[in-house]
Amino acid sequence: MKPNSTILTEEIGVNNFLKRYSDIRNHSVKICEPLEIEDYVVQPIVDVSPPKWHLGHTTWFFETFILQPNFPDYKVFDSQYNFVFNSYYETVGARVIRTDRGNLSRPSVADVYKYREYVDEKMKNFLENGLLTKEIEPLLELGLNHEQQHQELLLTDIKYILGHNPLFPAYRKQLDIEKKVYRSKEMLSFSEGVYEIGFNGTGFCFDNELGRHKVYLNDFEISSEVVTNNEYLEFIEAGGYQDFRYWHAEGWDWVKQKEAKSPLYWHLIDGKWMNYTLDGLKELDLNSAVCHINFYEASAFASWKGMRLPTEAEWEVASNQLEWGNRWEWTNSAYLPYPGFTKEAGAVGEYNGKFMVNQMVLRGASEATPNGHSRNTYRNFFQTDLKWQYTGIRLAR
Amino acid sequence: MKPNSTILTEEIGVNNFLKRYSDIRNHSVKICEPLEIEDYVVQPIVDVSPPKWHLGHTTWFFETFILQPNFPDYKVFDSQYNFVFNSYYETVGARVIRTDRGNLSRPSVADVYKYREYVDEKMKNFLENGLLTKEIEPLLELGLNHEQQHQELLLTDIKYILGHNPLFPAYRKQLDIEKKVYRSKEMLSFSEGVYEIGFNGTGFCFDNELGRHKVYLNDFEISSEVVTNNEYLEFIEAGGYQDFRYWHAEGWDWVKQKEAKSPLYWHLIDGKWMNYTLDGLKELDLNSAVCHINFYEASAFASWKGMRLPTEAEWEVASNQLEWGNRWEWTNSAYLPYPGFTKEAGAVGEYNGKFMVNQMVLRGASEATPNGHSRNTYRNFFQTDLKWQYTGIRLAR
Amino acid sequence: MKPNSTILTEEIGVNNFLKRYSDIRNHSVKICEPLEIEDYVVQPIVDVSPPKWHLGHTTWFFETFILQPNFPDYKVFDSQYNFVFNSYYETVGARVIRTDRGNLSRPSVADVYKYREYVDEKMKNFLENGLLTKEIEPLLELGLNHEQQHQELLLTDIKYILGHNPLFPAYRKQLDIEKKVYRSKEMLSFSEGVYEIGFNGTGFCFDNELGRHKVYLNDFEISSEVVTNNEYLEFIEAGGYQDFRYWHAEGWDWVKQKEAKSPLYWHLIDGKWMNYTLDGLKELDLNSAVCHINFYEASAFASWKGMRLPTEAEWEVASNQLEWGNRWEWTNSAYLPYPGFTKEAGAVGEYNGKFMVNQMVLRGASEATPNGHSRNTYRNFFQTDLKWQYTGIRLAR
Amino acid sequence: MKPNSTILTEEIGVNNFLKRYSDIRNHSVKICEPLEIEDYVVQPIVDVSPPKWHLGHTTWFFETFILQPNFPDYKVFDSQYNFVFNSYYETVGARVIRTDRGNLSRPSVADVYKYREYVDEKMKNFLENGLLTKEIEPLLELGLNHEQQHQELLLTDIKYILGHNPLFPAYRKQLDIEKKVYRSKEMLSFSEGVYEIGFNGTGFCFDNELGRHKVYLNDFEISSEVVTNNEYLEFIEAGGYQDFRYWHAEGWDWVKQKEAKSPLYWHLIDGKWMNYTLDGLKELDLNSAVCHINFYEASAFASWKGMRLPTEAEWEVASNQLEWGNRWEWTNSAYLPYPGFTKEAGAVGEYNGKFMVNQMVLRGASEATPNGHSRNTYRNFFQTDLKWQYTGIRLAR
Repeated sequence: MKPNSTILTEEIGVNNFLKRYSDIRNHSVKICEPLEIEDYVVQPIVDVSPPKWHLGHTTWFFETFILQPNFPDYKVFDSQYNFVFNSYYETVGARVIRTDRGNLSRPSVADVYKYREYVDEKMKNFLENGLLTKEIEPLLELGLNHEQQHQELLLTDIKYILGHNPLFPAYRKQLDIEKKVYRSKEMLSFSEGVYEIGFNGTGFCFDNELGRHKVYLNDFEISSEVVTNNEYLEFIEAGGYQDFRYWHAEGWDWVKQKEAKSPLYWHLIDGKWMNYTLDGLKELDLNSAVCHINFYEASAFASWKGMRLPTEAEWEVASNQLEWGNRWEWTNSAYLPYPGFTKEAGAVGEYNGKFMVNQMVLRGASEATPNGHSRNTYRNFFQTDLKWQYTGIRLAR
Repeated sequence: MKPNSTILTEEIGVNNFLKRYSDIRNHSVKICEPLEIEDYVVQPIVDVSPPKWHLGHTTWFFETFILQPNFPDYKVFDSQYNFVFNSYYETVGARVIRTDRGNLSRPSVADVYKYREYVDEKMKNFLENGLLTKEIEPLLELGLNHEQQHQELLLTDIKYILGHNPLFPAYRKQLDIEKKVYRSKEMLSFSEGVYEIGFNGTGFCFDNELGRHKVYLNDFEISSEVVTNNEYLEFIEAGGYQDFRYWHAEGWDWVKQKEAKSPLYWHLIDGKWMNYTLDGLKELDLNSAVCHINFYEASAFASWKGMRLPTEAEWEVASNQLEWGNRWEWTNSAYLPYPGFTKEAGAVGEYNGKFMVNQMVLRGASEATPNGHSRNTYRNFFQTDLKWQYTGIRLAR
Repeated sequence: MKPNSTILTEEIGVNNFLKRYSDIRNHSVKICEPLEIEDYVVQPIVDVSPPKWHLGHTTWFFETFILQPNFPDYKVFDSQYNFVFNSYYETVGARVIRTDRGNLSRPSVADVYKYREYVDEKMKNFLENGLLTKEIEPLLELGLNHEQQHQELLLTDIKYILGHNPLFPAYRKQLDIEKKVYRSKEMLSFSEGVYEIGFNGTGFCFDNELGRHKVYLNDFEISSEVVTNNEYLEFIEAGGYQDFRYWHAEGWDWVKQKEAKSPLYWHLIDGKWMNYTLDGLKELDLNSAVCHINFYEASAFASWKGMRLPTEAEWEVASNQLEWGNRWEWTNSAYLPYPGFTKEAGAVGEYNGKFMVNQMVLRGASEATPNGHSRNTYRNFFQTDLKWQYTGIRLAR
Repeated sequence: MKPNSTILTEEIGVNNFLKRYSDIRNHSVKICEPLEIEDYVVQPIVDVSPPKWHLGHTTWFFETFILQPNFPDYKVFDSQYNFVFNSYYETVGARVIRTDRGNLSRPSVADVYKYREYVDEKMKNFLENGLLTKEIEPLLELGLNHEQQHQELLLTDIKYILGHNPLFPAYRKQLDIEKKVYRSKEMLSFSEGVYEIGFNGTGFCFDNELGRHKVYLNDFEISSEVVTNNEYLEFIEAGGYQDFRYWHAEGWDWVKQKEAKSPLYWHLIDGKWMNYTLDGLKELDLNSAVCHINFYEASAFASWKGMRLPTEAEWEVASNQLEWGNRWEWTNSAYLPYPGFTKEAGAVGEYNGKFMVNQMVLRGASEATPNGHSRNTYRNFFQTDLKWQYTGIRLAR
């Protein structure tokens, strides 16, 4: 599978926007269909948000950035919700600190759905009334992509919530995920020289992808495929988690402090490796791509293999020849601005730039990424110790 | 109001047990009637348990200590529930660490109610089949009193959950709580001499009350009534929270670390003191008994008044002349064993004895205490920094 | 050995005060003679203070409470020292937070000794000039006893500093400590009835001992001797640290968190129990009194023996028939005020009263206690998890 | 001042090595001359090491990596010292955890100096006996550069120790530091194109500088001079520390948590900005280069100015036209491997590579850097929240 690399927004009329808005908003609801009400509420770790928060927060985005400033006589659904559903937009007022999200039993799930319906109805009116100007269009586009990002987080957070319950409940929904079939791997070679990276299409992209620019790359080789569970298991069985030489100093401290021994969701039960999946606890599938590892682990695995992770520029340059889209692939590039990057004014300017420190770039997409929400210039990023996303490894040298 | 001081269990036949079991179990369900499903799930601080956990845990007690060992062919409802609903009984296997309770979206609330119904049905069979022996009777009695203790915790935990939500939802149920009318206070005098304290009735009591024994008391005076919000407000306005001289060193550290300024649930909004109650956010009622203060605050208030807290022996000796039952009253007695105290063998021996260090005794009862669950020998106990119970102050000198 | 129980101060003239002042002050210096300058500076844990801080702090006491208010034209040695050497007297201004003591390389050790000489000279002048009034005398007495308390802390803190260094340096000074010879133990019996405890002598005592008062005791038995290393080793070898049933819930949490396995300073090296002593690392002396255990351990040991710790009243009543003075003995009494206890006004009122919460009373004295600084009414107190003092166990039932 | 950019080691005979060894080793001792013994011992924060540790650790390096494996019959000075003076070389055995360094009063300062003399004598014998082979030479060179790195740390750690003492003692030694005179600044322009960076000289460099390689740079401008205290004060006075828009999200959390308001060592006393320097507390020199700021602050300042920090490649390309050497200059480049970087086998391979995550590169040198220990390819690196080094800001756009 190669995801289509860009979504063209040009020449899309209001009807197309109405349909896309409706499709994307409905998809979030569909993701939550298998949940019990209780599953919407909890926050087992700070990085995982309660599903009802995701549903409210994405709605709040449209209310705050589109309806309130641009729809005359718009009445906010509940003035307290800004406090509850703001995430990190300092510009828009006081926020609930992130660790507190899991303490809020109210608004109830039913109220959050009422909030969605209210805002969706208003958005429909807004679009039908022809109020979408060229100035507002990028914000709407951002809101839709923002919702798609949270759709992936919804899935990963639901998996975390259910996968850390001693009853190991299945998410139960038969996911329409293409099963990866691994073909033979090969190392693809690229020659030294000046290449270009960054977005230059005409559709939507995030501000962090902008500024297509030249980079100079040395000769490199990159694997056509990502690493499998079987390969990662070899690393474990070779004592990879017991040998500091493969690890960053910081990674080694992490291993010792957390007593790390395997990817997230792996359980060694009666001598057999089991894996919690969205279908429940299953025997580990050795042929699947390894998943739920953090940067330290990805990097240590590569070091054990005598190789390294690719840089994001290498990845992007090679991307047309790679099988990708199944795992977010850790690169060895820190998340930093491209040449000429500037933050936009106002709250949306907080979207990406302020996170450009102490995080690493991941490239590709994952089986949890919504259709249409990926391209080969997409720059995903996370802290180096996190492993609850659908993350994997591609080797380079 | 003076609560009836003992519940006689002697000469109660099986029918009486059936009725009491049914009444007490139903009361827990009734307490939860006003809740949304979401309210059953969260755990905002480690001391507050999710309501569904209380409902499951009290059920687990009957299943584990009565049905499993004594009801032939009893089949446990779900073998995983021991792991989920055990609280601190080390004897009965691994327990979920307490901070994790708020992460468990499953079992669902519906499943917990099914669990209650299943166990209640079996308990009914058990009692009707005449399987309640003299040996088991004390355990049944303990289970019922245990459930009553959790009924009070249910209310205080629900109050905490709703009272720490920015929407300040009311619990809404019109509580059948007798409104305290404060009569004129007086200091009652007692003479030096040997007195007796401890339980010597024929009904139920906890093991920590047993061993009626002599104590020698000096002359003392004790107030007929507890301290009001009005009196406590005077302490605040006199700078009580800014003057270390009234506080224990440990209490003063607590004040500074928490930036403590008032009882829990008090909010100074636009210059007016508001108070979150089970009916929602209300103007502070100056004539009510002060509530939700910890030992440090009770002690500092007494010190500011030039008085002190009573000891538990003084309280018990004076109790027949006191108005009590509205607030759990902090004493200046540490929670320690009475002469001759011994732990029972097995898990029920863990009920009280192992907590006899670094906690203070509270005497009386509160408006949240279930009917029939109080007596003047009852020894409640909490750590010195906790304030989410219905705690108050009585002065002595 | 039975320490003389009281020190009479009445009828002591100025010459006697001069001599006692000089003797006690010199003894602190003598304790530090074997130290390297580096040993004076460090603070390995918050409870252990750097020796130079003890030397400065005890000096500051005389300067602040005697000389400054009472010696006309007295000039403070260095106005910054109040900030550095105050311990917890909130009345006397801002204090360096306790954890910071170990960061202060200055004032140097030489400067601290100059400070001592300066203040000692002034104190000598003060006493010789006949400025010691009846009002000031108790403060001087308090200052001397305060210095003696810090002499014991000096020794225990030095032991901690050297005993936690991987080189295990000996303190080297041949301590003039009477070696305890254990005679046969017996359980001494006492009959139920009214007894009196508390200080009623004419010499010095701390305010917390005052108010001799009646207590009612049930029949009890108490051991004539404290527990030996040999007996404690049996507890260890019987799995005492692995069986929760002997422990308070809080103690059991402590065991697991600290992975506690033995008294402080015990090291199992090549299958042999070694013990760090002030003479260096030695083979464990099985016949010595067990030392450096905390309240949880004392209590668990007693529980394992099927006995309990005595209350402080039982200890005091029995004290004339006990061998004591070798270890501070944990009692099962919380540190609380005696009937009629009142804090004195001003800073010295902070001496004891404000610590009367969440600590347990220890009775007796230890091999590290200065001569003359013990009596059978002395109430020592520490938190339940601390084990760096010379603490031991006496059994009762 | 422009530091000479490389130190040639080729053609240096043994005599030259003897002299360089001796000069560099003596310089460490000279740095410590003004210290009191007490100053050698403390560790106020985890990042600051006790001076005696630096003196021992640099000595341990020569003993462990040169003498032990290469000098026949070499006898280690004290076998315990490996435990005490190892820093982070996992290969060479158990290490004292870093936070514990400040607890070790022994070995004494005198013993550490004896250790230095012993090892220096043996190193002299080793060199004079012609045992320095071509294989060992790079290790010797590494040891000397390692000592120079610790000389800078010695100064910064001494400054921290004295500058966080309430007595504000001066280091007192008149430092032979060239006083920076600021000339007019200008923005220097560079054109887009392929440039080369990385070390290609013949002398010593660290492994992280190796692999001279091509990079593609866009047009950029870079300031000829670093930012002054005066300019930074304008940022403070314009409310820079109160406006989240200038900060990374992580930086803003840091500001709020630490209540950051200024560079380290700045104190606003009676309305006047004072600055702790190695000469003691002085009025802030507005014309000096701003110092002791962390990456978050450097980045926020640049954002407030509407500019940015340079990348390390930009800095290196421009370096010949810059005034540099007075402050370590934060770049906006993460510390990552150059193309083709490989770790050496064994313990020296731990020198740099394992730190290549979550740190930022600093370029240049500082007034605390030893003579000869700088070049324009040098890659210094620190975590983003640290500010105790001589760090400064250069702007780019």
